[in-house]
Order: sequence, then C-alpha cells, then structure tokens
Amino acid sequence: MDFRSDNIHEVADPVIKAIINANKGTIASYGEDEITNKAINLLSHLFDKDVYSFFVSTGTAANSLSLSAITPPFGTIFCGAESHIYLEECNAPEFFTNSAKLYPIKTDSGKILIDQLETVILNHPSEKFDMVPSSLSLSQGTECGTIYSDEEIRRIIKITKNKNIKIHMDGARFSNVVAATNKSPSDLTWKLGIDVMSFGTTKNGTLSAEAIISFDENITKNMNLSMKRSGHLLSKMRFLSAQIIGYLENNLWIELAKKANGKAKKICESLQKYNYLIMPWETQINEIFVIIPNEVDIYLKKNHVQYHDWTKISLKDKYQSKQYKLIRLVTSFNSDDKKIEEFISLFDKL
Amino acid sequence: MDFRSDNIHEVADPVIKAIINANKGTIASYGEDEITNKAINLLSHLFDKDVYSFFVSTGTAANSLSLSAITPPFGTIFCGAESHIYLEECNAPEFFTNSAKLYPIKTDSGKILIDQLETVILNHPSEKFDMVPSSLSLSQGTECGTIYSDEEIRRIIKITKNKNIKIHMDGARFSNVVAATNKSPSDLTWKLGIDVMSFGTTKNGTLSAEAIISFDENITKNMNLSMKRSGHLLSKMRFLSAQIIGYLENNLWIELAKKANGKAKKICESLQKYNYLIMPWETQINEIFVIIPNEVDIYLKKNHVQYHDWTKISLKDKYQSKQYKLIRLVTSFNSDDKKIEEFISLFDKL
Amino acid sequence: MDFRSDNIHEVADPVIKAIINANKGTIASYGEDEITNKAINLLSHLFDKDVYSFFVSTGTAANSLSLSAITPPFGTIFCGAESHIYLEECNAPEFFTNSAKLYPIKTDSGKILIDQLETVILNHPSEKFDMVPSSLSLSQGTECGTIYSDEEIRRIIKITKNKNIKIHMDGARFSNVVAATNKSPSDLTWKLGIDVMSFGTTKNGTLSAEAIISFDENITKNMNLSMKRSGHLLSKMRFLSAQIIGYLENNLWIELAKKANGKAKKICESLQKYNYLIMPWETQINEIFVIIPNEVDIYLKKNHVQYHDWTKISLKDKYQSKQYKLIRLVTSFNSDDKKIEEFISLFDKL
Amino acid sequence: MDFRSDNIHEVADPVIKAIINANKGTIASYGEDEITNKAINLLSHLFDKDVYSFFVSTGTAANSLSLSAITPPFGTIFCGAESHIYLEECNAPEFFTNSAKLYPIKTDSGKILIDQLETVILNHPSEKFDMVPSSLSLSQGTECGTIYSDEEIRRIIKITKNKNIKIHMDGARFSNVVAATNKSPSDLTWKLGIDVMSFGTTKNGTLSAEAIISFDENITKNMNLSMKRSGHLLSKMRFLSAQIIGYLENNLWIELAKKANGKAKKICESLQKYNYLIMPWETQINEIFVIIPNEVDIYLKKNHVQYHDWTKISLKDKYQSKQYKLIRLVTSFNSDDKKIEEFISLFDKL
Repeated sequence: MDFRSDNIHEVADPVIKAIINANKGTIASYGEDEITNKAINLLSHLFDKDVYSFFVSTGTAANSLSLSAITPPFGTIFCGAESHIYLEECNAPEFFTNSAKLYPIKTDSGKILIDQLETVILNHPSEKFDMVPSSLSLSQGTECGTIYSDEEIRRIIKITKNKNIKIHMDGARFSNVVAATNKSPSDLTWKLGIDVMSFGTTKNGTLSAEAIISFDENITKNMNLSMKRSGHLLSKMRFLSAQIIGYLENNLWIELAKKANGKAKKICESLQKYNYLIMPWETQINEIFVIIPNEVDIYLKKNHVQYHDWTKISLKDKYQSKQYKLIRLVTSFNSDDKKIEEFISLFDKL
Repeated sequence: MDFRSDNIHEVADPVIKAIINANKGTIASYGEDEITNKAINLLSHLFDKDVYSFFVSTGTAANSLSLSAITPPFGTIFCGAESHIYLEECNAPEFFTNSAKLYPIKTDSGKILIDQLETVILNHPSEKFDMVPSSLSLSQGTECGTIYSDEEIRRIIKITKNKNIKIHMDGARFSNVVAATNKSPSDLTWKLGIDVMSFGTTKNGTLSAEAIISFDENITKNMNLSMKRSGHLLSKMRFLSAQIIGYLENNLWIELAKKANGKAKKICESLQKYNYLIMPWETQINEIFVIIPNEVDIYLKKNHVQYHDWTKISLKDKYQSKQYKLIRLVTSFNSDDKKIEEFISLFDKL
Repeated sequence: MDFRSDNIHEVADPVIKAIINANKGTIASYGEDEITNKAINLLSHLFDKDVYSFFVSTGTAANSLSLSAITPPFGTIFCGAESHIYLEECNAPEFFTNSAKLYPIKTDSGKILIDQLETVILNHPSEKFDMVPSSLSLSQGTECGTIYSDEEIRRIIKITKNKNIKIHMDGARFSNVVAATNKSPSDLTWKLGIDVMSFGTTKNGTLSAEAIISFDENITKNMNLSMKRSGHLLSKMRFLSAQIIGYLENNLWIELAKKANGKAKKICESLQKYNYLIMPWETQINEIFVIIPNEVDIYLKKNHVQYHDWTKISLKDKYQSKQYKLIRLVTSFNSDDKKIEEFISLFDKL
Repeated sequence: MDFRSDNIHEVADPVIKAIINANKGTIASYGEDEITNKAINLLSHLFDKDVYSFFVSTGTAANSLSLSAITPPFGTIFCGAESHIYLEECNAPEFFTNSAKLYPIKTDSGKILIDQLETVILNHPSEKFDMVPSSLSLSQGTECGTIYSDEEIRRIIKITKNKNIKIHMDGARFSNVVAATNKSPSDLTWKLGIDVMSFGTTKNGTLSAEAIISFDENITKNMNLSMKRSGHLLSKMRFLSAQIIGYLENNLWIELAKKANGKAKKICESLQKYNYLIMPWETQINEIFVIIPNEVDIYLKKNHVQYHDWTKISLKDKYQSKQYKLIRLVTSFNSDDKKIEEFISLFDKL
C-alpha cells in the first residue's frame, strides 16, 4: 500500500514502446530531429495554437527555466507559500533567475489567497531601485490536490496584468486537471492568460520528461541557450521527445490521469464515512489529504501503508495540537486496486 | 522639516577631518595600510575582542556579504517580513549568496515573532535534497525603530543554534541601540551569540562606510575575495578606514547617536499628547512611527514636512481603513532643533 | 554515412532491457532506491574503491556539477582552449560555479600543453584578493580523439597538486579510453590523482545518463543539494540508474567502446593510404580527424557523407590557406559497417 | 620613491573641497539630488551629448556593471589576455553578468591583437545553443600604459559591429589618455563606436568615484536596479557626485593627468639613455615599463624604490631567462618631483 507519490510508480507501456520506436537509426542531436518536431507539433495541436515547446528531464528544471524566461535578476516572483517552487526546489528558481526573489503568499487548500495577493502587490516596494514585480507562479493542480477555478485564475490575472506581471503555471499534475475538468488545455491556459507553463508528464507515466510550453515566442526566444547553460539540453533529445509522443498519442495521458483521479476518488469517498477522519479540502485530482489522529497513523504504518506526512507543511495553523497528523496519499494510474481495497478495509478493522 | 531618513543628513565634521588627516603621502592600496589597521584595531578594542573587520561603501553590501559568508547557495535565510534585506535591497542577498532563499517571518514592531520562527524552523523541509536552514538575520535596531531585548535575542538563538543556524545582525542603526541602551557593543552582539554583523556608520555621520564585523575568523576567511568579486574592495581603502576612525574616536559615534535618539524622543513625547495620533510601537532609537488621519497628512505636507509613508509596509493588518496613514520620521544628530520645534508646534495649530 | 557524432546513435539493447527491468513496482524516488544503490555499487566495484556516484542526464551537468564541487565562486578553472567545457557548454561551468573563471590553456592534439600550464599557473595573480587557482579539467579521451598518457597526467598533477588545485576528468568518452588502453578505470583515474570525474555513458549506448564520480567523500558531500538546486535530481532516478546498470553489466560498455574504436581504426587505416589526406593526430579512440582539400569536402557531401567541420576549432594555426578543411568523423558501436565500407570506397573512386 | 600605483596617492584638494561644499543641509538620498544632477550634466557637457551616467565606488564595479548591461548570461565577452577585467577583478565580470564567459585575446603592449580577434570571432561556436558573442572590452589607456589609436579602435569595431557585439571601454586611466592625446572625450569614445565606458577618477585624484557612462539609453535602462542589487547604489550619493564635480570643474582632471603623464615622460626619457634598460613599449600615459637585470632590481629595492613586478604578467614570452625582471612604475599628479630626481640619479650611481 504505497501512496507516497506518483513519481514512485512505473512508466506506462506505450511510453516505453515509443522509446523503442525512436531507437532506430542515426538522427540529429540536441533536438534538431523529426521525432522532436513531431512532439512539438503534437503539443501545438493539443493547445489549438502554435506553442513553443522545450523538453527537459525534471519539473524543477521546467519550472525554473520558465520562471527565468519571465523574471529578471532584480524581479519578484509571487507564489504560494506552500508551493513546490518555494518549498521543494532547493533554491532552483533563485538560481536560474540569477537572484530573483520569491515572495510567498498565504494559501488555502493550496491556492493563493487572492486578497492577500492583491495587498502584497499593492504594497510592493516601488522606488526606481526596488525589485520589480515580474511574475507569478500558480500550481494547477495545486500541491493540495485542488484545482483553481477559471474564475479564480481570472481574478488573479486581473490583479497581475495591469502590473505587467507574467503568469507561470506549474502543471506538474496538469494532466490530472484536464482529466478532472474535461476542459481543453487551451481553455485552462492561454485563453485564461497563462504566459508559460511546465507541462508535467513524469508523474503520470513517463520516465522523466517535462515540457516547457510558452504561448508567446518572445518569452522563450533564448530558451535553448538557457537550457544548454544549465545542462538541460539533452544530446539524444529524441528519447525525451519520444516519451512526450507516447504520452500524448491515443489520448494516453488523459486515460492515465483519469485512472489516477478515479482511484483517489474511490479512496476519498471510502474514507469520508469515518468521522474521525477529516479531509481538510476537496480531493479534485489524485492527491488525498487526511487529518488523522496519531494512533491511526501508528496503526496504518504498522500495516505497511506508506504515505508522506504533510503535517509540517499545511497543518500549521489548524489542529495545532500534537494529537493529529495530516497525511498525503497520492494515487497513480498504476496504483494497485487490490492494495487500495486492502487499505480502505484497514479502517473497517480499526 | 525634513524627516525622510538619516541618510539625507550631513557628514559629521570630525569624519571630514579624519579624511583630510588620512590624505597625506603614499600608502598601500586595498587595505594593506596603517590607517586601515588602526580602524580595525579600534573595532577590536570596541568589541573587547579580536574581531575581523572589513569596510565597504553600503549597507546592502555589508548585509549581503555577511550573509554570503554564512549561507551556502542552497541555504535558507530567515528574516523579518519587513526587514531591509527582504524588502529593500533589490535581491542583493540572493545575488551575493548565489541563490540562497529568503524566508520571511512575520514581525511585530519590526521584531521577528519568535513563535512563528520556531514553527517555521520546525517545519522547514528536511529531506537530504532540501534547502538547508543556514542563517537568520535580525535588525538591531529594527526597521520600526525598536530594539530587541537581550532576552528576545537569546530566545531566538536558542531556537537557531541547535540547527546550526548562524546569526547575522543588521546594525545599520547599531549606534543608536548602543546609545539608547548604554550597553557595550560586545554585550549586544557576540556575547549573546551573534556571529557576524553589519556595523553601520553612514546613517550616523559618515559619507559611506559600513563595517562587516565577524566574531569568528572562519566565517570571514574569504571576505577579501568576496569583496573583490563583487567590486567592494576599495583601492584607496584608507578613506573608508579614516571615516571609521573619525567616527569612533572620542566616542563621536555615541555622542551623535545620543543626539539623534534625543531628538526622536522629544518629538515622540510631544506627539503623545495628541490623542488623534497613534504610535503603534515604542520609539526606542531615532525613528518615530505615527498613525495619522489622512487630513493630518495633507496638512503636514502643505506645511513642508517631509517624511516617508510607511503605510504599505507596516500598516497592512491594522487601521486598514483608508482614512489613516502610517508615517515614519527619522532624526539625525544634525536635525535642526528649531525645525523640530516648528514641526511640533504645527500640531498645536491644528 | 553518418559520422556526425556518437550521440546521433541508438541506445544499446541491453540498456533498454535494463530500463524495462527497472519498470516494476513502486520504489522510492530521488535516488533512495535499490536500483540506484546497485548502480552505485557497480561503480565502486569497477573503480576498486568506494566511490561517490551521482547520476544526471547530461554531460554538461556532470561536468559543471563536478567543477562546482571543487571550485569556489572566486576560483580559476584551468582547461584546454579547445575543451568542451570552454567552448561547447554555453557558460554552464561559470553558471554552476557561481562565477568561477575558465582559464584556457593552449592544446596540441587536444591535450593541454604542460609547459604552458606550468607558466600560466606560475604567473597566476596571487594577491590575497585575486582569484584562486582551484581546479583543472582535462578531457580523457580528448576532444581530438587522443588519450593522455599516464606520464602526461602525472606531470600535470605534479604541477597542480602543490597549489592545491583539484583535478576533474571529463570522461565523456572514458569508455573508449578504457577500451583502447586496456587499463583499469582505477589506474586511469584516482590512482593517478584525479579527484572527480564525469563518467559518460550517453555517447556509448545509453539514452542520457552521466555519472559524477568522486574519489573523496568531502568533495561531493553537498552534491544532492547542488543537483536539486540545478534541477538535476531526477524523481524517477531508477531509470537513470538502470541505464548505468545495463551499461556496466556483462562488460557491455567495454564491448561497445571496443566496437566504436575498432570502426574508427578501420577508417583511419584505410584513409592513411591516400596521401592527399592528412591526419593531424593519432586516432586513439572513436574520433578521426582528417584535413581534406576543399574539393574532397564537396565530393563527400555530394555523396551524402555527414560529419562535422572542425576547421574553426582546431585548424587555426595550420593549413591556414582556405583550400583545406579539418573534418571530424565519429564512430559508434552501432555505426553500420557497410556504410563504413561504402565511405572508404568513395576515396577509391576519387 | 613610491611608484607602486596611482591609487596609493592622495586626493586632490579641489575634490576634498567639493565634498565639503556638498556637506550642507539635507538632501534626497540614492542619487535623486541636485548635486548628482549637476555631475551628470557636467558629464553630458564633457561628452557633447546626453550621456547616461551612474556613479559607483570602484573600477571593478564600473566595469562589471557596464559589462552586465551589454552581455547576457549566455554571452561571450572578448577581452585582452592581460586586461584588468580578466586578470585582476576576481571573477567580478562573471559574477555581475550571471555567468558570461571571458574570452581572452592575445595582446601586444596591452592592446588586443586585431588579427587574433578576427580569427577568434570568426571561429566562435555558433550553434543555436552556443554562447553568444556579445561584447568586447578594451582598456583605454591599456594596462601597459599605451593608447589605442583611433584607427585601431575603428578596425576592432569594424570586426565586432557586424556581429552585433557591443563595446565597453575600461577607462580607468581615461583622463591620462585625454591629456596625452589632446582629443575630446567624444572623439575618443562614442564617435568611434564605444557603447559604454567606465570613466575612472580614483586613480587621478578622487577618493573613490567611478562613473559608468553609456551612450545609449537602452543599455543602462536598468542600471539603478543592477546597482542596488549589487550593493553599489550609495545612499549618500551626493558625496560621490561631489567628487566627480570637483574632478571635472576647472579642467582639474586634465591638469592632474597632464602632471602624471609629464612625470612619467620625464622618467622614461631619463632611463632611455641607459642601454641595459629596455622599455618594451612606448610610455604614452603615466605608466612606465622597464625590463631590468636582476641585479638592478636588487639595487633599486635596496635604495627603497617601490614598484610592482610585472614579469609574470607580461614578460612571459620575452626575456625568458631568469636574469631579467619587468617592472612597472606609475606616476601620479602628486608624485614628488624630488623623489623622481632621486630615482633617476640612482642609475647614474650604478
């Protein structure tokens, strides 16, 4: 019963097959090849627009390179106080932007509190030698397994656009959002005003392939240089591109994400009937957060359930007593249904 | 009636004289000279200890170089959410540390809230690839014109020391603290556990001379290199050193700071009798903060009183109605007493 | 007839199989898994010593992270004037080291000229605020397809060691060196005094897997943090590790490198009989360099031979007349023998 | 007899007076003041054009901030192999540009060899992910005390302009060049095609004041931000500006430089008659370079003559035998004429 993360799971078979398919003959290196072109075209097709796509091995690279494309060294990046870029990327955003400042905004259920954002932007220093509000990063889906509504994103962008603040979307679990909302990628991104995004695939069935996707050519005009300078331009790019192709073709990515979401939903619904379990926010994608009494934590661990403790990150202001833990369960397309049943039944036995 | 800052004021005459005294004959450059040695020795004497002193032209350089000496690129720097290093240095700390993360902690009256600090440090990510809690910067005196008590600093250091977090003190107005408390520099710093400090003099009577002072040789063993790499190693160092000498000799610095503090105290006491003026926190050094109704703001400006509006920075959570402003008045040793009388009398006429 | 590079070639089947083998069940992310441990152990076994291994996706990342582990921001890195790190990595070494200076040394046949190195190190600025000679990077095999002899490396290290300069080996084609010399990896590296190396596999049969290998725990003690900070810590690390395993098991890597070297040797020997072709230096691994008259260049291209023009990089001081080109041909284990025959026979028809 | 450098000398009296004059009353900080405006206007007047001027404390800062304004992180900066920015600034250019690469070009008598430059630029890597040739820095006067002719600069710029390479002039001793050539500042700079320069004053009579001067508003549009981010925006800017004013008014700067040049000339002419002294290049400004036998070196030192040994930097390829030293003598407006006589007479006694 392993719910630690989606990145502990396997690669989907069609992705492996796509790699094998790509492994034929000599081909230009560094992305000047037809497999890469095909992947790029698939993404443009997916987004109903010519988008500018670049493939890297990690989400941290995708996020940091995206942010560096819209933030000068003397810029401020607004982000959620619990966001991956703020807490989990070991200063990569500061590094790639050559010293931009991350400005954390309070969140609720993983979402930036819009009133707080408005206040912070309004009060940002504004002398001619003060750091310049430059970008905002929002995670869609959030690190709490929730989804920003279109209306929420529109409100955020209304605040930021008149300050010329560019918007980055951390889409590490974007597939789960598309699967959950049945909205098109374009409706969820550039049509709302997103400028550049990290389009994650690793958590949903590839080996390690993340796309930086920009909706404005100017934003990413130096991206190959930035990638090379940071060691993120793969020589055998075809194998990153092949992963993207295998991931997108036949709608695999949505299918996988639907499975992952469905398994999360099942767990969520099953747990809801136990009144000693509290779910602090809605499970909208493939992450379930549950506040459990300490003794349940001990019981679950004794029964070999694996998950991450999120108490430190998000429980801070609630349930402060030390009698509770906030745990995070993540499902994947590949999560074993029997193990899920087994996990759920553990609560019956409690 | 100019209360905008202490850096709008003149240089004290003895400092000019010290420069003129230093302007004799040829002398080694880059700090290998006797004038610099004398300044260094004066500081060691002042701190009752062999300290390691380095002179630079700005407070931002002193802060950022100090922080870079105790924070690796993958480190976290804890600081007050309203601190100068977080809000007013245009990402210099991130730049000099080669990407360290600033982690703002809520403050009250400019002081880091110790409970919040404890929670944040306790909850800081701690995987082996997570950024490493490395340093904490506190401003003594604070940006709100208050002074941390010894007890407060001891509590902070109790929390940080067992995580091996080093402490930086931003002493841009350290002279005002010494003058206000009558404590010795050593009692206020290394005896409490401060590791490195920015010892400001510019705001209190020099042209532009700030000392980085470390209480541990290892911390600053590469400081000359870091200074040169950032363009902060002056060739004609003697003229920075001379400023320090002029500042310290005959206790000038304390005398000047006492004057500045005294003028602030006078203003503060005079304003206290007007019940429509609210002073949100105690005036302990040479900065007075006053919440004033908007019409008073207009009246003062019409009467040519100059000051900075601090509403955006510190009034956020209080007096949210737009009928108030938070203003900051700063005094200097050189603030004109007649102008101060004139300013105070403006309220009588109101 | 595609001789552009080794990175245009396919992945060896056993590597693909190793990936498929690794694709089973859930497993800890970020390298805390048993597959990664196995790869690490294989490398320690290979090097007859406990080595410290870290896996990344690109050679630029491996080089730059290695260099940043042995070079402070105020350090100097000595390197060949035609080295990959100087010419081909788009300032990644400067970026990862947070501003170290690359100091190019003249080379002959890709090898650093040792007398020049000695002079440069002797004459390096040495004031207490001058950049500090910190590291030297040598490519083994070189970018010219040659191999440093043990004696040459010993002479280099004799010069550098008494200045406490650490040695990095760029082993992008290290496998070809091992295959060509029949020496053990340990004899070629730490036994000579190499401190840290980039152990390349991508050019010799993997998708994208390079190992940073350090022979001193202290050098790489912060490597996980540096990797994460630069977006080079893969979440699904097992798939990088699996590539390393597939590459090393059953001596695959040597077998592949021997094939590549053999094919290069064959080309080299065949071309030697044409006296209008000049090979400026010995072909010791899988790269052949040939100076050809311009009309041969045209003829070859017309016959669909693909290769890189190296005239600009290495021909500068020889054959300056514009009637010649210096071309680089690279072979891989997978280079088609028939195509090689076809290529060689082109010269007969000339 | 102290000829170590020009930065060992005093500040000219009119500069001290200008500081004292500026020390009156309160004034806006960070350069928003009238004294700074006056200095800026004086420079525009001097250059017969609206120039964009920014004042900092060190030449390294002026050079590095200038270079960062014309070089992206993935850019290449061409410079002389013996230039100050390459050898003497402890990686500040790499730091301020966020990782640009310095590409040293061979020099003769301190001047970039134009043929070498042409070859290097022609052969610079040019893939779409290769570092981008972005800027060239030339020192006028050079570190060898020579002056580029207009024709030489025109030839350099002819090569660089069609690659869109911007030109920086390190004018640490620009005053000496103006004094020596009797040309106008505009004829020596923007009229030739210089884009941005470091206009030094510290070596010629101020405390520490260097101007960044750009001839194109776009180049320096973010300069205040870059200065603040690097701790180089002085709060009491008026005292930097006052130095510039005192330096320029009444043509003081030219008068001082003429004195310095004249004293150098005198030494130079006197030494020429000794046939055991070799002057490897012409003394055009205030630096004299002399190749002396070792025993003369010993004799001079015994007689308390102070100078820097330049053997390591520039003698490398000539007089390789260890029987010679190359020494540098620098004069200042303030060099004592009696001491100069005394120095010259030492050779008579030899």
